[in-house]
Amino acid sequence: MTEAYVTLLVTDSYAPGALVLAQRLRELGTTRDIAVMVTANVSETIRKDLRLVFDRIIDIDKLDSGQADNLALLGRPELGVTFSKLQLWQLDYDKVVFLDADVLPMRLVDELFDRPEFSAAPDAGWPDCFNSGVFVAVPNKDTYRQLCDLAASKGSFDGGDQGLLNTYFSSWSTNSSDHRLPFIYNTTPTAVYSYVPAYHVNRDNIAIAHFIGTTKPWHSPPPPSNASQDKYDLVQQWWNVYNRYYGESTTPSTPSVAAPP
Amino acid sequence: MTEAYVTLLVTDSYAPGALVLAQRLRELGTTRDIAVMVTANVSETIRKDLRLVFDRIIDIDKLDSGQADNLALLGRPELGVTFSKLQLWQLDYDKVVFLDADVLPMRLVDELFDRPEFSAAPDAGWPDCFNSGVFVAVPNKDTYRQLCDLAASKGSFDGGDQGLLNTYFSSWSTNSSDHRLPFIYNTTPTAVYSYVPAYHVNRDNIAIAHFIGTTKPWHSPPPPSNASQDKYDLVQQWWNVYNRYYGESTTPSTPSVAAPP
Ligand SMILES: O=c1ccn([C@@H]2O[C@H](COP(=O)(O)OP(=O)(O)O)[C@@H](O)[C@H]2O)c(=O)[nH]1
Ligand SMILES: O=c1ccn([C@@H]2O[C@H](COP(=O)(O)OP(=O)(O)O)[C@@H](O)[C@H]2O)c(=O)[nH]1
Ligand SMILES: [Mn+2]
Ligand SMILES: [Mn+2]
Repeated sequence: MTEAYVTLLVTDSYAPGALVLAQRLRELGTTRDIAVMVTANVSETIRKDLRLVFDRIIDIDKLDSGQADNLALLGRPELGVTFSKLQLWQLDYDKVVFLDADVLPMRLVDELFDRPEFSAAPDAGWPDCFNSGVFVAVPNKDTYRQLCDLAASKGSFDGGDQGLLNTYFSSWSTNSSDHRLPFIYNTTPTAVYSYVPAYHVNRDNIAIAHFIGTTKPWHSPPPPSNASQDKYDLVQQWWNVYNRYYGESTTPSTPSVAAPP
Repeated sequence: MTEAYVTLLVTDSYAPGALVLAQRLRELGTTRDIAVMVTANVSETIRKDLRLVFDRIIDIDKLDSGQADNLALLGRPELGVTFSKLQLWQLDYDKVVFLDADVLPMRLVDELFDRPEFSAAPDAGWPDCFNSGVFVAVPNKDTYRQLCDLAASKGSFDGGDQGLLNTYFSSWSTNSSDHRLPFIYNTTPTAVYSYVPAYHVNRDNIAIAHFIGTTKPWHSPPPPSNASQDKYDLVQQWWNVYNRYYGESTTPSTPSVAAPP
């Protein structure tokens, strides 16, 4: 039974996220593989950094255009980047916990491997949809083909992998609750603002923080230490991990760190 | 088996909401009682309007959480009085669908009475909490006493009924999924903004719209008919019902209509 945490890198710009995620999983002592799926355009400089911390670097296709396996997707060229994620269903692992490159585990979360496919946490925007930044999946070539067929026939209602996956796994919200990961496994900072009292009750139990949106932690320097707003507290924790491995003299060759992309 | 839709009025200022809700339930043809719990301070003028459309006006005590601290986190100092809502567990109905005064059913929703206690829809802010503006409950004096005990011993993490109910019914998020109402039974306009594609997929299926927050539909005149934003579309539908029963010459003696409170 081989199991892995898998993340995705389709651009060099998300490398700080992927590296911090892998270092964090490793320092928490996971017993599972830590793997990253990368597209051909990811630079050799970045790959060198990835190799130092990931167990496996898995080359995947960028689901853009011109790839035989993914011809079905050609009708939607703009979806290529996020649809690349779907290739995890082609991997040779028995079970995968997929994590976006912009998440930070706050503690060891290996218990996620006890969950069935498909498990995910609700999206705070429309909570009958799941958020596709953290999920449990069982790679299977039939599933992969069906996902590609669905992409070709119906497409994704949000133009990304999340819309497509929510259509494919549409029974998620009515399924038995073991498919529903608690929100602490995919806590998005938006929740901090929307229902502050609930955040306060749960903040010490957050298992994985997910920095959704266009502004990622690595886009700006760490906030001043007296910043007391909760969202910045989570960002600070991302930076703490970053600084442990890549701070000061040990800065890796990652682009965009501490500067907007 | 007597069953009822029950709403709550602890201030005259929410009367337009309660009246529109009752008219709407009636015009949709519900077979259940339509009841309102009112506190002593609700004026006789308002009570006269209520009597014309509600099957029952039920006098209750005004209960206040008195938890200024937690209400401040919520940003809603006025919501301590929502503890009054708990008295529905003292009613003599066999089952109750509770509806906040600021909701609008878009279609007949009598199927909600098939759900077990406790059923509610996720709160878009922190989706492992339910939103307490729409829920299914079974009145029971023991439950009521336990809720009062919990209020006295531990209080509410948000200072309102929602925090208390989420603590009492804390197994809701891990319970079997028949306790989880689809989000279309309590769609909050915030969801319109947070995940627009999901809203677009689901907008024609919305069963109940819930106008959470300090600005209620009755606080401002109907938006211009060319307003195309989705949130305003829902507000317009609230006004359509209002105008059918209380528009122009038939304006009831409700305060605050078309003027901020
Ligand atoms: O330019 C990009 C966009 C996305 N991603 C990968 O795709 C995931 C999903 O994108 P993102 O996290 O930005 O979406 P959000 O969580 O903000 O919706 C990222 O975490 C990365 O793993 C990437 O490598 N480069
Ligand atoms: O001043 C008030 C505040 C609340 N309520 C009642 O309590 C419910 C809950 O409050 P509200 O809907 O404002 O809370 P929200 O849904 O915005 O969190 C209302 O719908 C009313 O039924 C009321 O009658 N008067
Ligand atoms: Mn993400
Ligand atoms: Mn409400």
